[in-house]
Amino acid sequence: MAPSAITPESSGTTTPTTAQASTLTQAGIKHHNGDGDALAPLDASKMTITLSTSPRDVPPMNSPEVMAQKTCTDHMVTAAWNETTGWAAPELKPYGPFSIMPSASVLHYATECFEGLKLYRGHDDRLRLFRVNKNCERMRRSCARIALPDFDAKELEKMIIALCARDGPKWLPSDRKGSFLYIRPTMISTDPALGVQRPKEALLYVIIALFPDMSKSLATPAAPPALAGDAQPKKATTGLKLLASTEDTIRAWPGGFGYAKLGANYGPSLVAQGEARARGFDQVLWLFGPEASVTEAGASNFFVVWRNKETGKTELVTAPLQERIILEGVTRASILELARERLAPGKAAGALEGVEVVERKFTMADVLAAHEEGRLVEAFAAGTAFFVAPVGLIHYKGQDVEIPMGAEGESGDYAKVLKGWLGGIMYGKEAHEWGVVVDEVKA
Amino acid sequence: MAPSAITPESSGTTTPTTAQASTLTQAGIKHHNGDGDALAPLDASKMTITLSTSPRDVPPMNSPEVMAQKTCTDHMVTAAWNETTGWAAPELKPYGPFSIMPSASVLHYATECFEGLKLYRGHDDRLRLFRVNKNCERMRRSCARIALPDFDAKELEKMIIALCARDGPKWLPSDRKGSFLYIRPTMISTDPALGVQRPKEALLYVIIALFPDMSKSLATPAAPPALAGDAQPKKATTGLKLLASTEDTIRAWPGGFGYAKLGANYGPSLVAQGEARARGFDQVLWLFGPEASVTEAGASNFFVVWRNKETGKTELVTAPLQERIILEGVTRASILELARERLAPGKAAGALEGVEVVERKFTMADVLAAHEEGRLVEAFAAGTAFFVAPVGLIHYKGQDVEIPMGAEGESGDYAKVLKGWLGGIMYGKEAHEWGVVVDEVKA
Repeated sequence: MAPSAITPESSGTTTPTTAQASTLTQAGIKHHNGDGDALAPLDASKMTITLSTSPRDVPPMNSPEVMAQKTCTDHMVTAAWNETTGWAAPELKPYGPFSIMPSASVLHYATECFEGLKLYRGHDDRLRLFRVNKNCERMRRSCARIALPDFDAKELEKMIIALCARDGPKWLPSDRKGSFLYIRPTMISTDPALGVQRPKEALLYVIIALFPDMSKSLATPAAPPALAGDAQPKKATTGLKLLASTEDTIRAWPGGFGYAKLGANYGPSLVAQGEARARGFDQVLWLFGPEASVTEAGASNFFVVWRNKETGKTELVTAPLQERIILEGVTRASILELARERLAPGKAAGALEGVEVVERKFTMADVLAAHEEGRLVEAFAAGTAFFVAPVGLIHYKGQDVEIPMGAEGESGDYAKVLKGWLGGIMYGKEAHEWGVVVDEVKA
Repeated sequence: MAPSAITPESSGTTTPTTAQASTLTQAGIKHHNGDGDALAPLDASKMTITLSTSPRDVPPMNSPEVMAQKTCTDHMVTAAWNETTGWAAPELKPYGPFSIMPSASVLHYATECFEGLKLYRGHDDRLRLFRVNKNCERMRRSCARIALPDFDAKELEKMIIALCARDGPKWLPSDRKGSFLYIRPTMISTDPALGVQRPKEALLYVIIALFPDMSKSLATPAAPPALAGDAQPKKATTGLKLLASTEDTIRAWPGGFGYAKLGANYGPSLVAQGEARARGFDQVLWLFGPEASVTEAGASNFFVVWRNKETGKTELVTAPLQERIILEGVTRASILELARERLAPGKAAGALEGVEVVERKFTMADVLAAHEEGRLVEAFAAGTAFFVAPVGLIHYKGQDVEIPMGAEGESGDYAKVLKGWLGGIMYGKEAHEWGVVVDEVKA
């Protein structure tokens, strides 16, 4: 097996870079070893297990450590890959630092991608994942875009489930019903060759972090004082306050990689995001092109509900996937599916009016017109991290667009009912195929 | 001092993530510690030195290890930063792996940027850097774009020089006159907080790698067999063979970050580059927009020399910096300055005709017209890694555009003379302020 940039922590010594006879790989083409055997596939059934000998106490959820999003559970799962042998056996082992060469591809060329999903402690006391298969399939598409190796999505799913089954009982115990842990599958290239080229070595890993519930905290962020002279939101609202991006900061572009969950989409957004927060906003509303198409809110998908000017019908609208500049959100897809199934005109329950579900390009001019003409019903951001978060205000070109937040000022009705349905599936109130029960490993 | 994600290798144990009371930082604004002291600036005069106790033999330049670009010298320089204390004292120490948390920002959000420059062993036996100040200033601009901390460019320059002075004598000895080492300053965020936010911890480091001379090897690449049915270059030429990018792969866009040396510009280019190589081309020629503007060649700037259709004058043309979609290359700037100074009409020496130097948008249609009308004189790519590399062929929309390669078929005359002048400064044949002599540390 070829030497890897990932070396055991316990070696404790300086590891020199070593020679490796490399073989040329054709992009995207599976190849074989010299002896005619196929490269080893990712295989969760080969997973080795090494339990932590120094398990930690679970810190309180309101501790600074958890609020700072730095706490991970006792274990992680890793699987190393290289171009000549394929996937090594996955390892479930104690969470801890990697040893990585300063020349590693991931540190220079952003050869990295990730996923984000949650483990839920149900009100019925069972642990569940939500549509984990969709995250694993999207991870494959992200890997393909950033020249990282492919794998069977089902095997990654098994690795995630194994880790959740192991650490879930302790880190998300029965007394935290209705709460979650955050799961972060990641792939990085550990290839120590400094040349700009397709990586020959990679590491797939899964970690689990304790996150505060940002769908609540974000509505009242601890934003630093706004700067004098800068645009500031007119007044405190209960929903998310979004600052529309300007033409000098564009998140993604057709022919780029906005659809994939690459590190390269996130780091370059941090300056704009930091400026928005310093000015008292929660997130950037990412616009695109001279017509100011509305694409994403922060790292979430964006939805608006309005009454169509021509038809008078109520519509739930979000940006389409065709141009590949927005992320194919799992929450996005689930909201669209539920709305089509349960909120179609004639089907909507109670006082709610049915909605037409529309995936299409829409612009800030469309939003402003709906606002001015009293047709704007509500807006919300949706994604795994922030779940379904009502939007209360958009600041665009010097103007504050206030968005209705429902009768109690907490949330529009559609966001509320969709959030309720999704939460019901996640936390086991509703039996649904999207909720994947994890059988816990008993200590 | 706040705990860092970088822990000493020698700890050898699993390091749990630890709590840290965090302070809010406003984007781009210098702040102070609670006691009123300013944050510590980057200060090369505080550098500590720990020499390797296991120095390695220098491998032959044609060894597989060097060809694979995996060999670094005995030492590296690092400097840690965090938001509460600023820059720690730089350390010159043995080259070896970092210990980095699986949750580190750089592994998820591509919070990373780098520089590339070379250390030259002059024909006069002295070591030189080339315009190192320009690399250090550009590194600051890259850091600003990716939310990494600022520093005094002069201090990074001193760190680079200290490392070159230490490792240069052994790794680039007197018997390798006319050769170089490759220097890679890098900054990464080591912040272990998983939230998408401006990093609170970072590591600046400098490593030196042994690289084969790619300005020679690339002209005859060991490309894998081309795939049946794919476009392939018509015949072997001596210059670089470039495959023009298609609309489904865009390297950079206005409002993006193409001008900065971010990892996020490189990883996403690897699939297209791998496909180009698999089809027998050396690099991708990156086009932009429906008009197919010519921007960069691989990770180098691109130059064309043609006779202007209207004026009949010979022009040296390259893409402009205004849209900020191309890298502000140090080699690019140096070529433009030398050409303006030494190749202006009336000044050009010998048989060479003077050229007008033009930075402007130009398209593939312009290149094709010049080719068809016999006005195309030559083309070349220029950057630190590949230096000045003549281009022999561009494949665009099913068409091979063959580009003149000079009387001997090796290089156009302008590329040759510019390369000669630059090389003369780098290797000490010409005394010039761009050549910065490094005083060697004698063993």
